This record gives sequence, structure tokens and C-alpha cells, in this order.
Amino acid sequence: MIGIFDSGVGGLTALWELRRLRPDLDIVYFGDTAHVPYGTRSPEMIRRFAGEAVGFLSGLGAEAILVACGTVSSVALPALSEHTGCPLFGVVEPAAEVAYRVSKNKKIGILATEATVGSGAFDRALRRLGPVVTRSLACPLFVSLAENGFTAPDDPVARAAAEHYLAPLRESALDTLILGCTHFPLLAAHIHRVLPGVRLIGAGEAAAAVLVEETPRVGHGELAVFASDAPDRFEATAARILGTSLPVHVQKYIPRRIQTTAGRYTDTIRKRN
Amino acid sequence: MIGIFDSGVGGLTALWELRRLRPDLDIVYFGDTAHVPYGTRSPEMIRRFAGEAVGFLSGLGAEAILVACGTVSSVALPALSEHTGCPLFGVVEPAAEVAYRVSKNKKIGILATEATVGSGAFDRALRRLGPVVTRSLACPLFVSLAENGFTAPDDPVARAAAEHYLAPLRESALDTLILGCTHFPLLAAHIHRVLPGVRLIGAGEAAAAVLVEETPRVGHGELAVFASDAPDRFEATAARILGTSLPVHVQKYIPRRIQTTAGRYTDTIRKRN
Repeated sequence: MIGIFDSGVGGLTALWELRRLRPDLDIVYFGDTAHVPYGTRSPEMIRRFAGEAVGFLSGLGAEAILVACGTVSSVALPALSEHTGCPLFGVVEPAAEVAYRVSKNKKIGILATEATVGSGAFDRALRRLGPVVTRSLACPLFVSLAENGFTAPDDPVARAAAEHYLAPLRESALDTLILGCTHFPLLAAHIHRVLPGVRLIGAGEAAAAVLVEETPRVGHGELAVFASDAPDRFEATAARILGTSLPVHVQKYIPRRIQTTAGRYTDTIRKRN
Repeated sequence: MIGIFDSGVGGLTALWELRRLRPDLDIVYFGDTAHVPYGTRSPEMIRRFAGEAVGFLSGLGAEAILVACGTVSSVALPALSEHTGCPLFGVVEPAAEVAYRVSKNKKIGILATEATVGSGAFDRALRRLGPVVTRSLACPLFVSLAENGFTAPDDPVARAAAEHYLAPLRESALDTLILGCTHFPLLAAHIHRVLPGVRLIGAGEAAAAVLVEETPRVGHGELAVFASDAPDRFEATAARILGTSLPVHVQKYIPRRIQTTAGRYTDTIRKRN
């Protein structure tokens, strides 16, 4: 079973890609809606929240966890190994590798949260691959826009926000842009409008592609979705994002009741398989 | 000493009013930046976060607490009494009373968070005052706009968001609008632009006026500000909101280390007075 974890609905962009590539996988998704957004919090707080989340997925029986959150991947990945014995897949290296490969002029931009930009993780990952010019930009409002459903291609609020953040990049020579927060592909149409010639690389999608290469075909295509708060709200947003092809029923997992919930869910999964 | 509590920077609109009315008061402000925003979370989670916050202020020696958060005032106020023995002042009744008094046609709107609108608290408070027609509207993105500094009167993102939420109210006959979330006065210019003839009542300001009536003149005008996470970010936003006339130095208070921090701060205050 593969665990996927994000602060909220952003990781659904990785889930979507994972299901497209490998519909056979058993997946359990966890959105930490009690603590979203992560990207404006301190590294210390992000590590604390992420540690609980990874511990929860591990307790459910996840054999690998996709950390489908750019912020956690950037500031907390090494610290998370303490909370689980299973392999953790972050989004930074996979996205950097795809971006470096497709970029012709090796001038690569990174759109992400404040915490991610502050960490410099994507810049470092890109520089490890070879000579490159990077430019990082924090777009914190994009997360709130995605969480609150301001994602339609004609949405005037998302349009104004994209213009606000990205207009300064128009004169740059960037040919590739890493969407370093998994919420941001939900605003891809708006990013494209402001920067039409630039290639967009979704961090969650890139990471999903790496994960499937290393995962054997053993599942039954089961999907379980948990949220740490307000599951109905999460379900409505998720349904809008994923469409009708991937129906979700969101179950609530409240931090500090890990054992009870995990036990119950693992029993359900075992009975099915 | 008066405690003021909000999920983030919204309560600074109440702090500002409190300082204007009574510069003599000793005030300790707490912004729960580890958990902001509250308004999209469940009542259960809001009660948990708010309980910790009130316990913290109480532990610092607050003799009265202004719950300068519309969401907490609406869904958690009775439950909070468990966490403190001192009087709690919420924003719902004061704002409802001002709005009812100034409204000529008794058609009153409420702009607030999802949790506040879901609770119906402002509607009930208004109906207790007499015959009234109410209309409540959730504007969750306004909190993120305020927290991320999209508050300038000419900001195009805030303008688009105000138009999105408020255009449907243009044809209503509302003559008064309660800003039922203390973040919303930061967007007053944008709300005015869409609904120019409507009187705006800030919930935090109304509550501050009630609190000062019941508070004796005993302080030295001390101000201490705590945030539960990312204090530098909070300080930058607070400085922008409050201007240079009310300089803040934000100290970090991490939940679960209440006793240590509280003891240290109380000592400092005692030495000063």
C-alpha cells in the first residue's frame, strides 16, 4: 500500500497522476486539513505536523510514502525518517531532474511556498545536476486559492493573483518553471496565461513517476482518503479537483487518536484483500 | 492586564481600537499563527485550538480576555470558560448591538468565515434584539488576503475577491454589514467599493468598546505580543497593519510549553510594574 501525504488537497494532483500511471496500486491519502497551509509556518512546526502525518500513514501499513507536499519535501524530509521505517519519496529531486532535462537554456524558475523558497532546496537540487540559473518565487496565496476552489480557468481572482506574482518574471529568460508546491498545478491555466512560452513541471507528477518505477504490481486499486479535519469540506474540494472519475469518501482522522483509527482501517483493508 | 486573542493578525484591528480608546491598558496579544486560519476548520478543532490559547493568556495573568476572533466567538465561547476563570468578551453580541442600532431598515448582512456563518451566531444575536432580516455570507479568502498582506486599497487581487463575494449583495436592500471576522476591516476599502452605500460595523472594534466600559484604569500602557509560530512573519504583517505608531516585538510561544514561557513573561511584567 502506498501512502500519499499533503497539507491539504494539493497532493491530489500527485494522486491523480499515480492513478493514471498505475491504476492497480492500493493508495491511502492523508490531507492534514487541521493544519493547512504549511508553507507560511516555520520549519520546526512543519516538521512536527509532518511527523504526525507520516506516523499515521505508517501505522496504517503504508509500504512507501509519497510526500506530495513541496514544503515538507523541502524542509522536513530527513527528519521524517525517524517517524517511519518505510521509504519516503519527496518531490524536490524528481521535479528538479525533469526540469533540468527539458530546459534548453538551463534558466529554471521555481514557484513555491515561502518555506520552500526559504529552504533553497530546489535550487540546490538543480545545481547538483549541472550549470543552471535559478530564480525562486514564493506565491503563498496560490495555496489558499486552490484550497478555496478559486481554480477555474476563467476565475478573475486567480487571474489577478497570477498576474500579481508572475508579471515580474515576464522579462526573465526562464524557459522552464517548476511548480514546487503540489497545489499550484491547479492554477496551471492562470500561470500559462501570464507566462505562455514557459514549460511547467508539476512537482507531484514528477515524483509520482519516480515512485511507480520502484513499486511492484501487487494491489487491487483500492483508495482510502483521510483528512485530519472538516472531511466534508475536503471531500467537496477533492471531488471538484478529481472529477467524477475518482470518487472519494473522506474519513476523518484526528491527531492523537492514531491507534484506534489505524486499527479500524487496517482491519477493513485486510478483510477486502 | 487584558488578553487579546485571534487566530492571526485579524485581532490587531481590535487591539488598535482598544489602544485608541484606552492607551493606559496593559495588553498581551496572542496570534495563533501555528493554526491560522480557523474559519475553515470544524467547531471541534476550533474549540481545541482556542482552549489552548485562552489557557495561555490566562496563565500569563490576563484578568479579562477579548476573544477578537469572530470564528471563536461564534462557535467556541461557552466551551472556553472551562479554560479560564477570567471574563471572556466575544465579538458577536457587541457587533450585533451596534449594527441593530445604526440600521434604519433592519436589513443587516454578515460577512464572516465559513464556520461563523455555519454557526448562525450573528443571526441569532440580531434576532434577539428585535425584528430583523439577516443575510450571511462566507468569504474565506478574505482571511488569507489579510494574512498575506493583500490589503492595499488599490490591490487588484483583493478587488477581484471583493467583487466575487459581494457583487451578489448589490441588489439586496441591506443598509448595514457586520464584518464578523476581525480580519475583514483590513479589506474595508474593497468592501466599500463594491457596496458603497452600506454601513460597515467591525466586530473587533465593537467588542473593544464594550470591554473598555467594564475595565478600570490601572495599567501602564504595556504591550506584549506573542505568536505560536513564525514570529518574524507575524511581526512584519503586524507592523504593516498597525503602522509605526504601535511598534510590536513578537515573542514566540509554542503550544505545550505554556508553563515555561508564561512563568518567564509574568516575571518580566512583575519586575516592570
